[in-house]
Amino acid sequence: MITSSANAQMKYLVKLQEKGAARKEDGVYVCEGKKMFAEVLSYAAKSVVKAYFAESFYEKWRGEFAGEVPFEIVSDAVFKEVSRTVTPQGVLAIVRQPDYSLEGILAKAGRDAPCRLLILENLRDPGNLGTILRTAEGAGMAGIILGRGSVDMFNPKVIRSTMGAIYRLPFVYKEDFPGLLGVLKQWGFMVYAAHLAGSVEYDTVEYNPRTALMVGNEANGLTEEAAAAADLCVRIPMEGELESLNAAVAAAVLMYETYRQARAGRDFGI
Amino acid sequence: MITSSANAQMKYLVKLQEKGAARKEDGVYVCEGKKMFAEVLSYAAKSVVKAYFAESFYEKWRGEFAGEVPFEIVSDAVFKEVSRTVTPQGVLAIVRQPDYSLEGILAKAGRDAPCRLLILENLRDPGNLGTILRTAEGAGMAGIILGRGSVDMFNPKVIRSTMGAIYRLPFVYKEDFPGLLGVLKQWGFMVYAAHLAGSVEYDTVEYNPRTALMVGNEANGLTEEAAAAADLCVRIPMEGELESLNAAVAAAVLMYETYRQARAGRDFGI
Repeated sequence: MITSSANAQMKYLVKLQEKGAARKEDGVYVCEGKKMFAEVLSYAAKSVVKAYFAESFYEKWRGEFAGEVPFEIVSDAVFKEVSRTVTPQGVLAIVRQPDYSLEGILAKAGRDAPCRLLILENLRDPGNLGTILRTAEGAGMAGIILGRGSVDMFNPKVIRSTMGAIYRLPFVYKEDFPGLLGVLKQWGFMVYAAHLAGSVEYDTVEYNPRTALMVGNEANGLTEEAAAAADLCVRIPMEGELESLNAAVAAAVLMYETYRQARAGRDFGI
Repeated sequence: MITSSANAQMKYLVKLQEKGAARKEDGVYVCEGKKMFAEVLSYAAKSVVKAYFAESFYEKWRGEFAGEVPFEIVSDAVFKEVSRTVTPQGVLAIVRQPDYSLEGILAKAGRDAPCRLLILENLRDPGNLGTILRTAEGAGMAGIILGRGSVDMFNPKVIRSTMGAIYRLPFVYKEDFPGLLGVLKQWGFMVYAAHLAGSVEYDTVEYNPRTALMVGNEANGLTEEAAAAADLCVRIPMEGELESLNAAVAAAVLMYETYRQARAGRDFGI
Protein backbone atom coordinates (compact mmCIF):
# COMPACT_ATOMS: atom_id res chain seq x y z
CA MET A 1 0.00 0.00 0.00
CA ILE A 2 1.21 3.50 -0.86
CA THR A 3 1.27 5.59 2.32
CA SER A 4 3.21 8.69 1.29
CA SER A 5 2.36 11.42 -1.15
CA ALA A 6 6.09 11.71 -1.82
CA ASN A 7 5.85 8.33 -3.59
CA ALA A 8 6.95 8.73 -7.22
CA GLN A 9 3.70 7.29 -8.59
CA MET A 10 1.66 9.72 -6.49
CA LYS A 11 3.73 12.65 -7.69
CA TYR A 12 3.20 11.48 -11.25
CA LEU A 13 -0.58 11.27 -10.71
CA VAL A 14 -0.65 14.86 -9.49
CA LYS A 15 1.46 16.01 -12.42
CA LEU A 16 -0.82 14.30 -14.92
CA GLN A 17 -3.88 15.93 -13.40
CA GLU A 18 -2.36 19.39 -13.42
CA LYS A 19 -0.18 19.57 -16.51
CA GLY A 20 -1.54 19.19 -20.00
CA ALA A 21 2.03 19.09 -21.34
CA ALA A 22 2.83 16.05 -19.17
CA ARG A 23 -0.31 14.27 -20.38
CA LYS A 24 0.57 15.04 -23.97
CA GLU A 25 4.19 13.95 -23.63
CA ASP A 26 3.26 10.58 -22.17
CA GLY A 27 0.04 10.13 -24.16
CA VAL A 28 -2.02 9.40 -21.07
CA TYR A 29 -4.65 11.04 -18.89
CA VAL A 30 -6.27 10.52 -15.51
CA CYS A 31 -9.83 9.45 -14.94
CA GLU A 32 -11.37 9.80 -11.49
CA GLY A 33 -14.35 8.36 -9.70
CA LYS A 34 -16.31 5.14 -9.57
CA LYS A 35 -18.66 5.95 -12.40
CA MET A 36 -16.02 7.19 -14.82
CA PHE A 37 -13.78 4.26 -13.96
CA ALA A 38 -16.61 1.84 -14.66
CA GLU A 39 -17.05 3.55 -18.04
CA VAL A 40 -13.35 3.16 -18.82
CA LEU A 41 -13.56 -0.52 -18.01
CA SER A 42 -16.57 -0.88 -20.31
CA TYR A 43 -15.18 1.01 -23.26
CA ALA A 44 -11.42 1.08 -22.96
CA ALA A 45 -10.25 -1.45 -20.37
CA LYS A 46 -7.13 -2.22 -22.39
CA SER A 47 -6.14 1.43 -22.24
CA VAL A 48 -5.87 1.46 -18.45
CA VAL A 49 -2.19 1.73 -17.55
CA LYS A 50 -2.79 1.50 -13.82
CA ALA A 51 -5.57 2.17 -11.33
CA TYR A 52 -5.12 3.52 -7.81
CA PHE A 53 -7.77 2.69 -5.22
CA ALA A 54 -8.16 4.44 -1.89
CA GLU A 55 -8.00 1.84 0.85
CA SER A 56 -11.59 2.15 2.03
CA PHE A 57 -12.89 2.28 -1.54
CA TYR A 58 -11.00 -0.92 -2.30
CA GLU A 59 -12.48 -2.67 0.72
CA LYS A 60 -15.95 -1.73 -0.42
CA TRP A 61 -15.73 -2.29 -4.17
CA ARG A 62 -12.93 -4.82 -4.69
CA GLY A 63 -15.40 -7.43 -5.88
CA GLU A 64 -16.58 -5.15 -8.64
CA PHE A 65 -13.28 -3.85 -9.98
CA ALA A 66 -10.24 -5.75 -8.75
CA GLY A 67 -8.43 -8.08 -11.08
CA GLU A 68 -9.43 -6.46 -14.35
CA VAL A 69 -6.51 -4.05 -14.63
CA PRO A 70 -3.17 -3.43 -12.92
CA PHE A 71 -3.80 -1.58 -9.69
CA GLU A 72 -2.36 -0.44 -6.41
CA ILE A 73 -3.90 0.51 -3.05
CA VAL A 74 -3.35 3.97 -1.58
CA SER A 75 -4.03 5.03 2.00
CA ASP A 76 -7.15 7.20 2.29
CA ALA A 77 -5.14 10.17 3.56
CA VAL A 78 -2.68 10.07 0.66
CA PHE A 79 -5.48 9.50 -1.85
CA LYS A 80 -7.23 12.61 -0.61
CA GLU A 81 -4.03 14.60 -1.01
CA VAL A 82 -3.44 13.35 -4.53
CA SER A 83 -6.97 13.81 -5.83
CA ARG A 84 -7.74 17.23 -7.31
CA THR A 85 -11.48 17.05 -6.65
CA VAL A 86 -13.23 18.52 -3.63
CA THR A 87 -14.81 15.17 -2.78
CA PRO A 88 -12.36 12.44 -3.82
CA GLN A 89 -14.16 9.40 -5.08
CA GLY A 90 -11.76 6.61 -4.22
CA VAL A 91 -10.33 5.69 -7.61
CA LEU A 92 -7.89 7.38 -9.95
CA ALA A 93 -6.69 5.64 -13.08
CA ILE A 94 -3.99 6.45 -15.59
CA VAL A 95 -5.39 5.76 -19.04
CA ARG A 96 -3.76 5.84 -22.47
CA GLN A 97 -5.13 8.57 -24.73
CA PRO A 98 -7.13 7.28 -27.67
CA ASP A 99 -5.53 7.98 -31.00
CA TYR A 100 -8.13 9.12 -33.51
CA SER A 101 -7.40 10.62 -36.91
CA LEU A 102 -9.59 12.77 -39.12
CA GLU A 103 -9.10 10.31 -41.96
CA GLY A 104 -10.19 7.48 -39.66
CA ILE A 105 -13.37 9.30 -38.65
CA LEU A 106 -14.17 10.09 -42.29
CA ALA A 107 -13.39 6.59 -43.52
CA LYS A 108 -15.61 5.09 -40.85
CA ALA A 109 -18.49 7.33 -41.90
CA GLY A 110 -17.94 6.44 -45.56
CA ARG A 111 -17.83 8.52 -48.73
CA ASP A 112 -21.54 8.92 -49.34
CA ALA A 113 -23.44 8.27 -46.14
CA PRO A 114 -24.91 11.09 -44.07
CA CYS A 115 -22.33 12.32 -41.59
CA ARG A 116 -22.27 15.26 -39.22
CA LEU A 117 -19.18 16.74 -37.59
CA LEU A 118 -18.57 19.54 -35.12
CA ILE A 119 -15.58 21.88 -35.38
CA LEU A 120 -14.63 23.93 -32.33
CA GLU A 121 -12.28 26.87 -32.53
CA ASN A 122 -10.63 28.34 -29.47
CA LEU A 123 -12.97 26.84 -26.91
CA ARG A 124 -11.54 27.72 -23.50
CA ASP A 125 -13.87 26.48 -20.78
CA PRO A 126 -13.37 22.83 -19.74
CA GLY A 127 -16.96 22.44 -18.54
CA ASN A 128 -18.25 23.77 -21.87
CA LEU A 129 -16.07 21.39 -23.86
CA GLY A 130 -17.16 18.37 -21.80
CA THR A 131 -20.80 19.33 -22.12
CA ILE A 132 -20.41 19.78 -25.87
CA LEU A 133 -18.85 16.34 -26.26
CA ARG A 134 -21.71 14.84 -24.25
CA THR A 135 -24.30 16.66 -26.35
CA ALA A 136 -22.54 15.70 -29.58
CA GLU A 137 -22.84 12.02 -28.75
CA GLY A 138 -26.55 12.52 -28.02
CA ALA A 139 -27.11 14.43 -31.26
CA GLY A 140 -25.43 11.69 -33.27
CA MET A 141 -22.38 13.61 -34.46
CA ALA A 142 -19.65 11.41 -35.96
CA GLY A 143 -16.85 13.28 -34.21
CA ILE A 144 -15.41 16.56 -32.99
CA ILE A 145 -12.54 18.49 -34.51
CA LEU A 146 -10.73 20.87 -32.18
CA GLY A 147 -8.99 23.83 -33.75
CA ARG A 148 -6.55 26.40 -32.52
CA GLY A 149 -6.40 27.34 -28.86
CA SER A 150 -8.91 24.81 -27.60
CA VAL A 151 -8.69 23.57 -24.04
CA ASP A 152 -7.14 20.10 -23.57
CA MET A 153 -9.72 17.35 -23.95
CA PHE A 154 -7.88 15.36 -21.27
CA ASN A 155 -8.22 18.11 -18.67
CA PRO A 156 -9.89 16.35 -15.68
CA LYS A 157 -12.77 18.85 -15.68
CA VAL A 158 -13.50 18.14 -19.33
CA ILE A 159 -13.48 14.41 -18.73
CA ARG A 160 -15.89 14.71 -15.79
CA SER A 161 -18.38 16.81 -17.70
CA THR A 162 -18.46 14.47 -20.70
CA MET A 163 -20.24 11.91 -18.50
CA GLY A 164 -18.54 9.08 -20.36
CA ALA A 165 -18.94 10.43 -23.89
CA ILE A 166 -15.17 10.89 -24.05
CA TYR A 167 -14.77 7.11 -24.30
CA ARG A 168 -17.17 6.82 -27.20
CA LEU A 169 -17.03 9.90 -29.40
CA PRO A 170 -13.94 10.39 -31.58
CA PHE A 171 -12.15 13.74 -31.53
CA VAL A 172 -9.05 15.13 -33.18
CA TYR A 173 -6.94 18.27 -32.97
CA LYS A 174 -6.31 20.17 -36.22
CA GLU A 175 -4.41 23.41 -36.02
CA ASP A 176 -4.32 23.91 -39.77
CA PHE A 177 -7.74 25.34 -40.60
CA PRO A 178 -7.39 25.83 -44.35
CA GLY A 179 -6.02 22.29 -44.62
CA LEU A 180 -8.89 20.90 -42.59
CA LEU A 181 -11.52 22.65 -44.68
CA GLY A 182 -9.83 21.41 -47.83
CA VAL A 183 -10.10 17.82 -46.65
CA LEU A 184 -13.73 18.28 -45.64
CA LYS A 185 -14.54 19.73 -49.06
CA GLN A 186 -12.91 16.75 -50.77
CA TRP A 187 -15.08 14.49 -48.68
CA GLY A 188 -18.23 16.33 -49.75
CA PHE A 189 -18.98 18.30 -46.60
CA MET A 190 -20.73 21.64 -46.35
CA VAL A 191 -19.33 23.79 -43.56
CA TYR A 192 -21.78 25.94 -41.55
CA ALA A 193 -20.39 28.51 -39.14
CA ALA A 194 -22.30 29.83 -36.11
CA HIS A 195 -21.95 33.58 -36.27
CA LEU A 196 -23.79 36.45 -34.58
CA ALA A 197 -23.80 38.25 -37.92
CA GLY A 198 -24.74 35.16 -39.93
CA SER A 199 -26.78 35.88 -43.04
CA VAL A 200 -29.49 33.29 -42.34
CA GLU A 201 -31.24 31.94 -39.27
CA TYR A 202 -29.97 28.46 -38.38
CA ASP A 203 -33.41 26.88 -38.49
CA THR A 204 -34.31 28.07 -41.98
CA VAL A 205 -31.40 26.12 -43.50
CA GLU A 206 -31.80 22.69 -45.03
CA TYR A 207 -28.54 21.13 -43.91
CA ASN A 208 -26.53 18.98 -46.23
CA PRO A 209 -26.50 15.30 -45.21
CA ARG A 210 -22.75 15.78 -44.89
CA THR A 211 -22.53 18.73 -42.54
CA ALA A 212 -19.72 20.23 -40.50
CA LEU A 213 -20.85 22.78 -37.91
CA MET A 214 -18.33 25.28 -36.68
CA VAL A 215 -18.59 27.02 -33.27
CA GLY A 216 -16.14 29.50 -31.79
CA ASN A 217 -14.79 30.93 -28.59
CA GLU A 218 -17.03 31.72 -25.57
CA ALA A 219 -16.25 35.43 -25.51
CA ASN A 220 -15.41 36.28 -29.11
CA GLY A 221 -17.11 33.70 -31.29
CA LEU A 222 -15.37 32.46 -34.42
CA THR A 223 -12.41 34.32 -35.87
CA GLU A 224 -13.15 36.19 -39.09
CA GLU A 225 -10.83 33.82 -40.90
CA ALA A 226 -12.79 30.77 -39.79
CA ALA A 227 -16.15 32.36 -40.52
CA ALA A 228 -14.98 33.43 -43.98
CA ALA A 229 -13.84 29.91 -44.78
CA ALA A 230 -17.30 28.43 -44.11
CA ASP A 231 -19.79 27.78 -46.90
CA LEU A 232 -22.52 29.52 -44.92
CA CYS A 233 -22.70 31.59 -41.73
CA VAL A 234 -25.82 30.85 -39.71
CA ARG A 235 -27.23 32.91 -36.89
CA ILE A 236 -29.12 31.70 -33.84
CA PRO A 237 -31.79 34.34 -33.27
CA MET A 238 -32.11 35.84 -29.79
CA GLU A 239 -34.81 37.85 -28.11
CA GLY A 240 -34.02 40.34 -25.38
CA GLU A 241 -30.73 42.08 -24.95
CA LEU A 242 -28.27 39.21 -24.71
CA GLU A 243 -24.95 39.59 -26.44
CA SER A 244 -24.65 35.88 -27.12
CA LEU A 245 -25.55 32.40 -25.96
CA ASN A 246 -23.25 30.18 -23.94
CA ALA A 247 -21.00 28.26 -26.38
CA ALA A 248 -22.24 24.84 -25.23
CA VAL A 249 -25.83 26.00 -25.64
CA ALA A 250 -25.19 27.41 -29.12
CA ALA A 251 -23.50 24.17 -30.16
CA ALA A 252 -26.39 22.15 -28.71
CA VAL A 253 -29.07 24.17 -30.50
CA LEU A 254 -27.26 23.78 -33.83
CA MET A 255 -26.45 20.09 -33.42
CA TYR A 256 -30.00 19.22 -32.37
CA GLU A 257 -31.44 21.12 -35.35
CA THR A 258 -29.28 19.10 -37.76
CA TYR A 259 -30.23 15.95 -35.84
CA ARG A 260 -33.91 16.88 -36.07
CA GLN A 261 -33.57 17.26 -39.83
CA ALA A 262 -31.58 14.04 -40.13
CA ARG A 263 -34.25 12.12 -38.23
CA ALA A 264 -37.07 13.72 -40.21
CA GLY A 265 -35.26 12.76 -43.42
CA ARG A 266 -34.81 9.22 -42.16
CA ASP A 267 -38.45 8.95 -41.14
CA PHE A 268 -39.65 10.05 -44.54
CA GLY A 269 -37.08 7.95 -46.35
CA ILE A 270 -35.42 11.01 -47.92
CA MET B 1 -11.39 54.30 2.55
CA ILE B 2 -12.00 50.93 4.14
CA THR B 3 -8.65 49.35 5.01
CA SER B 4 -9.60 46.41 7.21
CA SER B 5 -11.51 43.25 6.41
CA ALA B 6 -12.77 43.37 10.00
CA ASN B 7 -14.87 46.40 8.97
CA ALA B 8 -18.56 45.61 9.54
CA GLN B 9 -19.50 46.38 5.93
CA MET B 10 -16.78 44.04 4.64
CA LYS B 11 -17.97 41.25 6.92
CA TYR B 12 -21.49 41.82 5.68
CA LEU B 13 -20.33 41.62 2.04
CA VAL B 14 -18.67 38.26 2.70
CA LYS B 15 -21.77 36.97 4.49
CA LEU B 16 -24.03 37.99 1.61
CA GLN B 17 -21.79 36.22 -0.89
CA GLU B 18 -21.65 33.02 1.12
CA LYS B 19 -25.04 32.68 2.80
CA GLY B 20 -28.26 32.35 0.87
CA ALA B 21 -30.19 32.73 4.14
CA ALA B 22 -28.61 36.12 4.80
CA ARG B 23 -29.45 37.27 1.26
CA LYS B 24 -33.02 36.11 1.69
CA GLU B 25 -33.46 37.70 5.10
CA ASP B 26 -32.28 41.09 3.90
CA GLY B 27 -33.73 40.81 0.40
CA VAL B 28 -30.43 41.74 -1.28
CA TYR B 29 -27.63 40.09 -3.25
CA VAL B 30 -24.10 40.90 -4.37
CA CYS B 31 -23.06 41.56 -7.93
CA GLU B 32 -19.37 41.56 -8.84
CA GLY B 33 -17.29 42.83 -11.70
CA LYS B 34 -17.23 45.77 -14.06
CA LYS B 35 -19.50 44.26 -16.70
CA MET B 36 -22.16 43.02 -14.31
CA PHE B 37 -22.07 46.32 -12.42
CA ALA B 38 -22.56 48.22 -15.67
CA GLU B 39 -25.58 45.97 -16.37
CA VAL B 40 -27.01 46.71 -12.92
CA LEU B 41 -26.65 50.43 -13.56
CA SER B 42 -28.41 50.06 -16.92
CA TYR B 43 -31.31 47.94 -15.74
CA ALA B 44 -31.66 48.38 -12.00
CA ALA B 45 -29.65 51.40 -10.84
CA LYS B 46 -32.27 52.25 -8.22
CA SER B 47 -31.84 48.82 -6.68
CA VAL B 48 -28.20 49.39 -5.82
CA VAL B 49 -27.91 49.74 -2.05
CA LYS B 50 -24.20 50.41 -2.08
CA ALA B 51 -21.19 49.80 -4.31
CA TYR B 52 -17.66 49.06 -3.12
CA PHE B 53 -14.78 49.93 -5.43
CA ALA B 54 -11.24 48.63 -5.03
CA GLU B 55 -8.92 51.61 -4.84
CA SER B 56 -7.09 51.03 -8.13
CA PHE B 57 -10.34 50.20 -9.93
CA TYR B 58 -11.82 53.46 -8.69
CA GLU B 59 -8.84 55.45 -9.90
CA LYS B 60 -9.22 53.93 -13.34
CA TRP B 61 -12.99 53.94 -13.78
CA ARG B 62 -14.31 56.70 -11.53
CA GLY B 63 -15.36 58.76 -14.51
CA GLU B 64 -17.58 55.97 -15.74
CA PHE B 65 -19.29 54.90 -12.54
CA ALA B 66 -18.86 57.33 -9.66
CA GLY B 67 -21.74 59.51 -8.62
CA GLU B 68 -24.56 57.32 -9.85
CA VAL B 69 -25.04 55.28 -6.70
CA PRO B 70 -23.87 55.36 -3.06
CA PHE B 71 -20.36 53.94 -2.90
CA GLU B 72 -17.26 53.50 -0.80
CA ILE B 73 -13.60 52.88 -1.65
CA VAL B 74 -11.83 49.77 -0.35
CA SER B 75 -8.07 49.18 -0.30
CA ASP B 76 -6.99 46.69 -2.97
CA ALA B 77 -5.73 44.22 -0.37
CA VAL B 78 -9.00 44.19 1.57
CA PHE B 79 -11.01 44.02 -1.63
CA LYS B 80 -9.13 40.93 -2.66
CA GLU B 81 -9.84 39.33 0.69
CA VAL B 82 -13.52 40.12 0.53
CA SER B 83 -14.11 39.02 -3.06
CA ARG B 84 -15.00 35.35 -3.51
CA THR B 85 -13.73 35.14 -7.08
CA VAL B 86 -10.29 33.93 -8.10
CA THR B 87 -9.60 37.12 -10.04
CA PRO B 88 -11.38 39.97 -8.22
CA GLN B 89 -12.68 42.54 -10.64
CA GLY B 90 -12.62 45.70 -8.59
CA VAL B 91 -16.29 46.30 -7.85
CA LEU B 92 -18.79 44.60 -5.57
CA ALA B 93 -22.29 45.99 -5.17
CA ILE B 94 -25.11 45.18 -2.79
CA VAL B 95 -28.32 45.17 -4.80
CA ARG B 96 -31.95 44.79 -3.72
CA GLN B 97 -33.56 41.59 -4.99
CA PRO B 98 -36.27 42.16 -7.60
CA ASP B 99 -39.70 41.18 -6.44
CA TYR B 100 -41.54 39.33 -9.21
CA SER B 101 -44.82 37.44 -8.80
CA LEU B 102 -46.31 34.73 -10.97
CA GLU B 103 -49.47 36.77 -11.30
CA GLY B 104 -47.39 39.74 -12.41
CA ILE B 105 -45.62 37.71 -15.10
CA LEU B 106 -48.92 36.29 -16.34
CA ALA B 107 -50.71 39.62 -16.28
CA LYS B 108 -47.91 41.23 -18.27
CA ALA B 109 -48.15 38.51 -20.92
CA GLY B 110 -51.94 38.91 -21.10
CA ARG B 111 -54.80 36.41 -21.15
CA ASP B 112 -54.67 35.44 -24.82
CA ALA B 113 -51.29 36.32 -26.26
CA PRO B 114 -48.64 33.67 -26.93
CA CYS B 115 -46.54 33.17 -23.83
CA ARG B 116 -43.85 30.63 -22.97
CA LEU B 117 -42.63 29.84 -19.47
CA LEU B 118 -39.96 27.53 -18.08
CA ILE B 119 -40.45 25.58 -14.84
CA LEU B 120 -37.37 24.15 -13.13
CA GLU B 121 -37.61 21.52 -10.41
CA ASN B 122 -34.75 20.77 -8.10
CA LEU B 123 -32.03 22.32 -10.23
CA ARG B 124 -28.83 22.16 -8.15
CA ASP B 125 -25.93 23.48 -10.20
CA PRO B 126 -25.46 27.28 -10.10
CA GLY B 127 -23.70 27.36 -13.50
CA ASN B 128 -26.55 25.42 -15.07
CA LEU B 129 -29.19 27.73 -13.61
CA GLY B 130 -27.37 30.84 -14.78
CA THR B 131 -26.91 29.41 -18.27
CA ILE B 132 -30.59 28.45 -18.40
CA LEU B 133 -31.67 31.96 -17.45
CA ARG B 134 -29.42 33.38 -20.16
CA THR B 135 -30.77 30.95 -22.74
CA ALA B 136 -34.36 31.64 -21.67
CA GLU B 137 -33.95 35.32 -22.39
CA GLY B 138 -32.55 34.46 -25.81
CA ALA B 139 -35.36 32.04 -26.59
CA GLY B 140 -37.97 34.65 -25.67
CA MET B 141 -39.42 32.96 -22.59
CA ALA B 142 -41.63 35.24 -20.49
CA GLY B 143 -40.18 34.02 -17.20
CA ILE B 144 -38.83 31.18 -15.12
CA ILE B 145 -40.56 29.43 -12.25
CA LEU B 146 -38.31 27.67 -9.77
CA GLY B 147 -39.78 24.75 -7.87
CA ARG B 148 -38.67 22.74 -4.88
CA GLY B 149 -35.02 22.39 -4.03
CA SER B 150 -33.66 24.74 -6.67
CA VAL B 151 -30.38 26.52 -6.10
CA ASP B 152 -30.64 30.18 -5.03
CA MET B 153 -30.90 32.50 -8.03
CA PHE B 154 -28.87 35.09 -6.11
CA ASN B 155 -25.92 32.75 -5.62
CA PRO B 156 -22.93 34.69 -7.06
CA LYS B 157 -22.11 31.86 -9.48
CA VAL B 158 -25.63 31.93 -10.88
CA ILE B 159 -25.52 35.68 -11.32
CA ARG B 160 -22.20 35.52 -13.17
CA SER B 161 -23.35 32.85 -15.58
CA THR B 162 -26.57 34.69 -16.48
CA MET B 163 -24.42 37.31 -18.26
CA GLY B 164 -26.90 40.01 -17.33
CA ALA B 165 -30.12 38.12 -18.07
CA ILE B 166 -30.86 38.13 -14.33
CA TYR B 167 -31.65 41.83 -14.56
CA ARG B 168 -34.10 41.39 -17.40
CA LEU B 169 -35.88 38.05 -17.15
CA PRO B 170 -38.49 37.64 -14.40
CA PHE B 171 -38.32 34.58 -12.14
CA VAL B 172 -40.33 33.37 -9.14
CA TYR B 173 -40.08 30.60 -6.57
CA LYS B 174 -43.12 28.34 -6.18
CA GLU B 175 -42.85 25.41 -3.80
CA ASP B 176 -46.46 24.39 -4.23
CA PHE B 177 -46.48 22.43 -7.49
CA PRO B 178 -50.16 21.44 -7.66
CA GLY B 179 -51.10 25.03 -6.88
CA LEU B 180 -48.77 26.32 -9.59
CA LEU B 181 -50.13 23.97 -12.23
CA GLY B 182 -53.68 24.92 -11.25
CA VAL B 183 -52.92 28.59 -11.86
CA LEU B 184 -51.24 27.82 -15.20
CA LYS B 185 -54.26 25.78 -16.29
CA GLN B 186 -56.59 28.66 -15.42
CA TRP B 187 -54.45 30.91 -17.57
CA GLY B 188 -54.71 28.53 -20.52
CA PHE B 189 -51.23 26.98 -20.47
CA MET B 190 -50.29 23.51 -21.63
CA VAL B 191 -47.52 21.99 -19.49
CA TYR B 192 -44.87 19.88 -21.25
CA ALA B 193 -42.43 17.89 -19.14
CA ALA B 194 -38.98 16.81 -20.33
CA HIS B 195 -38.72 13.15 -19.44
CA LEU B 196 -36.38 10.36 -20.56
CA ALA B 197 -39.42 8.09 -20.81
CA GLY B 198 -41.63 10.70 -22.49
CA SER B 199 -44.18 9.27 -24.88
CA VAL B 200 -43.35 11.57 -27.81
CA GLU B 201 -40.22 13.14 -29.23
CA TYR B 202 -40.01 16.84 -28.38
CA ASP B 203 -39.72 17.94 -32.00
CA THR B 204 -42.83 16.14 -33.24
CA VAL B 205 -45.06 18.19 -30.94
CA GLU B 206 -46.92 21.28 -32.07
CA TYR B 207 -46.59 23.38 -28.95
CA ASN B 208 -49.49 25.40 -27.67
CA PRO B 209 -48.95 29.16 -28.05
CA ARG B 210 -49.23 29.22 -24.27
CA THR B 211 -46.61 26.70 -23.23
CA ALA B 212 -44.93 25.90 -19.94
CA LEU B 213 -41.87 23.65 -20.27
CA MET B 214 -40.79 21.68 -17.21
CA VAL B 215 -37.20 20.47 -16.68
CA GLY B 216 -35.88 18.57 -13.67
CA ASN B 217 -32.80 17.82 -11.65
CA GLU B 218 -29.36 17.22 -13.23
CA ALA B 219 -28.99 13.70 -11.92
CA ASN B 220 -32.52 12.44 -11.52
CA GLY B 221 -34.69 14.42 -13.92
CA LEU B 222 -38.21 15.39 -12.90
CA THR B 223 -39.91 13.73 -9.96
CA GLU B 224 -42.68 11.30 -10.89
CA GLU B 225 -45.16 13.66 -9.25
CA ALA B 226 -44.10 16.56 -11.47
CA ALA B 227 -44.03 14.45 -14.63
CA ALA B 228 -47.49 13.04 -13.86
CA ALA B 229 -48.91 16.52 -13.41
CA ALA B 230 -47.84 17.62 -16.90
CA ASP B 231 -50.19 17.54 -19.87
CA LEU B 232 -47.57 15.75 -21.97
CA CYS B 233 -44.16 14.20 -21.34
CA VAL B 234 -41.74 14.82 -24.18
CA ARG B 235 -38.48 13.05 -24.80
CA ILE B 236 -35.32 14.45 -26.36
CA PRO B 237 -33.95 11.60 -28.49
CA MET B 238 -30.32 10.62 -28.02
CA GLU B 239 -27.94 8.56 -30.10
CA GLY B 240 -25.10 6.64 -28.50
CA GLU B 241 -25.05 5.43 -24.96
CA LEU B 242 -25.60 8.58 -22.98
CA GLU B 243 -27.84 8.38 -19.95
CA SER B 244 -29.03 11.93 -20.31
CA LEU B 245 -28.17 15.41 -21.53
CA ASN B 246 -26.88 18.18 -19.31
CA ALA B 247 -29.91 19.98 -17.79
CA ALA B 248 -29.00 23.35 -19.33
CA VAL B 249 -28.63 21.69 -22.74
CA ALA B 250 -31.95 19.87 -22.43
CA ALA B 251 -33.68 23.10 -21.43
CA ALA B 252 -32.01 24.93 -24.32
CA VAL B 253 -33.04 22.35 -26.91
CA LEU B 254 -36.65 22.47 -25.73
CA MET B 255 -36.85 26.24 -25.43
CA TYR B 256 -35.32 26.80 -28.86
CA GLU B 257 -37.73 24.31 -30.45
CA THR B 258 -40.71 26.20 -29.02
CA TYR B 259 -39.08 29.46 -30.12
CA ARG B 260 -38.53 28.06 -33.62
CA GLN B 261 -42.22 27.15 -33.83
CA ALA B 262 -43.26 30.52 -32.40
CA ARG B 263 -41.19 32.35 -35.01
CA ALA B 264 -42.42 30.15 -37.83
CA GLY B 265 -46.00 30.84 -36.71
CA ARG B 266 -45.29 34.56 -36.59
CA ASP B 267 -43.67 34.55 -40.04
CA PHE B 268 -46.67 32.84 -41.61
CA GLY B 269 -49.14 35.00 -39.69
CA ILE B 270 -50.61 32.01 -37.82
